[in-house]
Amino acid sequence: MTTDSDGAGSGGAAERPRGDAAWLEVDEDGGFGVENLPYGVFSRSGELPRVGVAIGGYVLDLAGLAAAGLVEDRRWFASGSLNAFMVAGRAAWRANRARLVDLLTDGSARPEVEPHLIPLADVELLRPIEVADYVDFYSSEHHATNVGRIFRPDGNPLAPNWKRLPVAYHGRSGTVYPSGTPIIRPSGQRRAPGEEEPSFGPSLRLDVEAEVGFVAGVPSSAGRGVPTSAFRDHVFGFVLVNDWSARDVQALESLPLGPFLSKSFATSISPWVVPLAALEPARVAPPAQFPEPAPYLRCDEPWGLDLHLEVLINGQVAARPPFASMYWTAPQQLAHATVNGAPLRTGDLFASGTVSGPEREQRGCLLELTWNGQDPVELADGTKRAFLEDGDTVTIRGKAPGASGSVISLGEVTGTVHPPLP
Amino acid sequence: MTTDSDGAGSGGAAERPRGDAAWLEVDEDGGFGVENLPYGVFSRSGELPRVGVAIGGYVLDLAGLAAAGLVEDRRWFASGSLNAFMVAGRAAWRANRARLVDLLTDGSARPEVEPHLIPLADVELLRPIEVADYVDFYSSEHHATNVGRIFRPDGNPLAPNWKRLPVAYHGRSGTVYPSGTPIIRPSGQRRAPGEEEPSFGPSLRLDVEAEVGFVAGVPSSAGRGVPTSAFRDHVFGFVLVNDWSARDVQALESLPLGPFLSKSFATSISPWVVPLAALEPARVAPPAQFPEPAPYLRCDEPWGLDLHLEVLINGQVAARPPFASMYWTAPQQLAHATVNGAPLRTGDLFASGTVSGPEREQRGCLLELTWNGQDPVELADGTKRAFLEDGDTVTIRGKAPGASGSVISLGEVTGTVHPPLP
Repeated sequence: MTTDSDGAGSGGAAERPRGDAAWLEVDEDGGFGVENLPYGVFSRSGELPRVGVAIGGYVLDLAGLAAAGLVEDRRWFASGSLNAFMVAGRAAWRANRARLVDLLTDGSARPEVEPHLIPLADVELLRPIEVADYVDFYSSEHHATNVGRIFRPDGNPLAPNWKRLPVAYHGRSGTVYPSGTPIIRPSGQRRAPGEEEPSFGPSLRLDVEAEVGFVAGVPSSAGRGVPTSAFRDHVFGFVLVNDWSARDVQALESLPLGPFLSKSFATSISPWVVPLAALEPARVAPPAQFPEPAPYLRCDEPWGLDLHLEVLINGQVAARPPFASMYWTAPQQLAHATVNGAPLRTGDLFASGTVSGPEREQRGCLLELTWNGQDPVELADGTKRAFLEDGDTVTIRGKAPGASGSVISLGEVTGTVHPPLP
Repeated sequence: MTTDSDGAGSGGAAERPRGDAAWLEVDEDGGFGVENLPYGVFSRSGELPRVGVAIGGYVLDLAGLAAAGLVEDRRWFASGSLNAFMVAGRAAWRANRARLVDLLTDGSARPEVEPHLIPLADVELLRPIEVADYVDFYSSEHHATNVGRIFRPDGNPLAPNWKRLPVAYHGRSGTVYPSGTPIIRPSGQRRAPGEEEPSFGPSLRLDVEAEVGFVAGVPSSAGRGVPTSAFRDHVFGFVLVNDWSARDVQALESLPLGPFLSKSFATSISPWVVPLAALEPARVAPPAQFPEPAPYLRCDEPWGLDLHLEVLINGQVAARPPFASMYWTAPQQLAHATVNGAPLRTGDLFASGTVSGPEREQRGCLLELTWNGQDPVELADGTKRAFLEDGDTVTIRGKAPGASGSVISLGEVTGTVHPPLP
């Protein structure tokens, strides 16, 4: 815990013993207690979308609370995205969080608050943010090394720049979809097995990429970078990301300008944005960095995050990637992406790149898990996968340690592969 | 002229002899006659931005015309961007263009129309579109070959995929700026001359890239590509683009995911969006393509464009890139970018990549003109440039043949290099 942290960790609910956290019943291991309070956007049939937070098996309707005068609201919550609230900044985020903790833990507030709790089963969760730009990093040393070995077997698996700067590229923000959106198998030019020449058709090597992203709330100025020390002044929270990838298209197209169609067909994000304050207790020291990074990449605080991911295919765990193993941290990524003077906009999404640990079962994509399809993974039901098949449902979920020994859930991001449209 | 073309070419003003084109005096070689009528967004001091078209030395205020009942308007024109009008689609674009030609050529309309003409000197021209995603191609064979020779001297200058598909990457849409925006020299990790190790600092190899972009108006559906034959149903018009580049940063960062900070600090676009209809007479056969492209890249119509660009540094011509030499055409680029099922959004910007012809003076960037700084260009005033210096103003302008022997101007995009902020 640092003096610079916000919210639940430094007071309020976090100081309470577990089980006394809220006046409504919350499954203590479900990860949606008062120590979390992630923000999302939901709709109930026939009603306009609005902002809520998850608590137990409910969504707490912030637009409803605001209309009842129970929380401050400057057109933040009767909205189809979190962007209006995200731009309000850290003081507003902190105040709202503290107010929600009070409302959910003070039994006398129950009669007023309870009418604004809606069972999750009764709502549809939407994409929480209006995405401005989408940047995807490549910050797992294990992932980058494995991919280098697979795609460039004769070269150095890690490019010479990899430990000097957090390598990244811009993705397509228009195809960042909410969890649950059907994933239509993309077509493109690729080399099919046994073929000499590339041909056109549906990807034969469709893959998942288990990632974690952070979302910018407060813009920054052109010409000024965002130093690692200002990370909390700009970043609203974290989401889970599945950066679906067509490996055969990627192998053919990526020289020299990087991936394009192999990524741009779809990226899925989880419905709940977990605020930074909820993740403060999950901060850990990242791996040692050598050579020492350039001064603009140095960070006074430890910003590794002890998030535990799971990748499920049709409900069966295929991998357990450990986010704490990421080489480059989120404040370093943000400092790098802005050091050239590119300003932040509200809704900018920065994803980590595939999260892979050192062990085989910790690899966050099938490319690595199956070594480009050579060694399929066997699922619990006895079926095998080299790459994704039509009908497969991929789910990524994540948990972290929260305040007072609680569990923080990042929820899940899911998608089912559909064949190309006829 | 094809049967599928719209607007001035197939009727109205285009059939008139030159000089009888409009009731107001228009410099016939200025490129802003009734055969052009490009759309932009302007503001007059103290007034809200709105949509206009350029005619001679004036902007015709479409919001004003609409308020007077002279043109149809469904909340298209009292707007800070062209997006609302661009989404309206081809029938609306065609009808509005025909109406404007009538109003500007029928002398009896003059008393009603003239009050809505504002001298260009009295307005500020703004960024014409709200950019959704920004894609940058790499479609000049001469440019790609030169860059390959410079950056990868030991390899094949053209990557094996280059003639199979229009190579591209996503750029940063949040830093697509209107013409005239100051360009602050970006910093980043780069290798300085004589240094063994990379270091951090302002780019020492700041460059221009002369490009031409097209803008999507009508969205497309996820999972469905936009065939080359549907180009006109989705694309509103063309702009000039300067994709400012930091070559030293680019050389260090681009492996394996492509350029990032070397491009994302700034891209400038011209204020006027020239509608497709105005450019129909500029269509020419593109260079022969071998090997024959995949079926989704074939195009029944010639879609080379005979645009003549000029790159000026401090008012002195440094290069004259011929757009007609581009290997991949705009409909091919759009078909490629969507063949994986990625949908178009209104405001998507697709730039051509640097336009370079076969001759040295036709190269659209300093990297090529000076062979990575080895052979500086001498300007008319006797000064030399290896790369851009602080204070340099770069202007790209473009012209094309229009209907009835007219000239179509794409206007210009300009920017001045400023030192890093203190």
